Amino acid sequence: MPAAHEPIHEIIRAYRAAILAKDVEGFVDLYAPHVRVFDTWGVWSYEGRPAWREMVRGWFASLGDERVGVDLSDLQIAVATESAVVTAIVTYSGVSAEGDVLRSMQNRVTWVLAREGARWRIVHEHTSAPVGFDDGKVILQR
Amino acid sequence: MPAAHEPIHEIIRAYRAAILAKDVEGFVDLYAPHVRVFDTWGVWSYEGRPAWREMVRGWFASLGDERVGVDLSDLQIAVATESAVVTAIVTYSGVSAEGDVLRSMQNRVTWVLAREGARWRIVHEHTSAPVGFDDGKVILQR
Repeated sequence: MPAAHEPIHEIIRAYRAAILAKDVEGFVDLYAPHVRVFDTWGVWSYEGRPAWREMVRGWFASLGDERVGVDLSDLQIAVATESAVVTAIVTYSGVSAEGDVLRSMQNRVTWVLAREGARWRIVHEHTSAPVGFDDGKVILQR
Repeated sequence: MPAAHEPIHEIIRAYRAAILAKDVEGFVDLYAPHVRVFDTWGVWSYEGRPAWREMVRGWFASLGDERVGVDLSDLQIAVATESAVVTAIVTYSGVSAEGDVLRSMQNRVTWVLAREGARWRIVHEHTSAPVGFDDGKVILQR
């Protein structure tokens, strides 16, 4: 793994850990104050960290005693001096309190990161899943 | 407008012009050979220009004597030395041979561009529209 990629993998690990722990502030801290998020579900755009925090708070609160595991595949990372771009297929798995996988769905994810001094934050996130031409329904498994 | 943004606006103009003219090669020339496209419709990922060319060829061929107009709003551009990121809401309008707007739909678009010597090309495109939580149907108007 190129050394330049290490801080990016660190962000990915922190993203997985924050979701697994339902840690709202740990999650939101991965994002820059002026982040723009194009999310898969229901809303055209979240502009800024406060709007994104509200989404995340509602998501984590909705999970009850379930947890969510995150796995990335087809990962591509491009790192420059001050910015980086990550694209991947992401699988979100709902896991019961007993550790059983109850359901899973896949998304495409694009992350744009910017370096702020010693650390990196996500300045743009775009998640989606493709939509069927004929029925306009989202396709959540590749 | 910052001078650094001018080559990016040039790409956007060329994107609109190639779609309006249904110019397959002009369109594909805006993309880097190893482009990765996460498109709104039906397919998880197009990997590389040949795969993307086939999609575009089919799209333009399906239009008959209609043409497609492209408008961007909520545009954000970030340019670094060798890369740039564009996010926006894009409206695609189907226009009849007589000039009447027959239909339109909106998408979110993310473009990542890289500089190759004097010119810029799109190395990653992600388009999507949000999906309704309750019915899983794509929402094509903001």
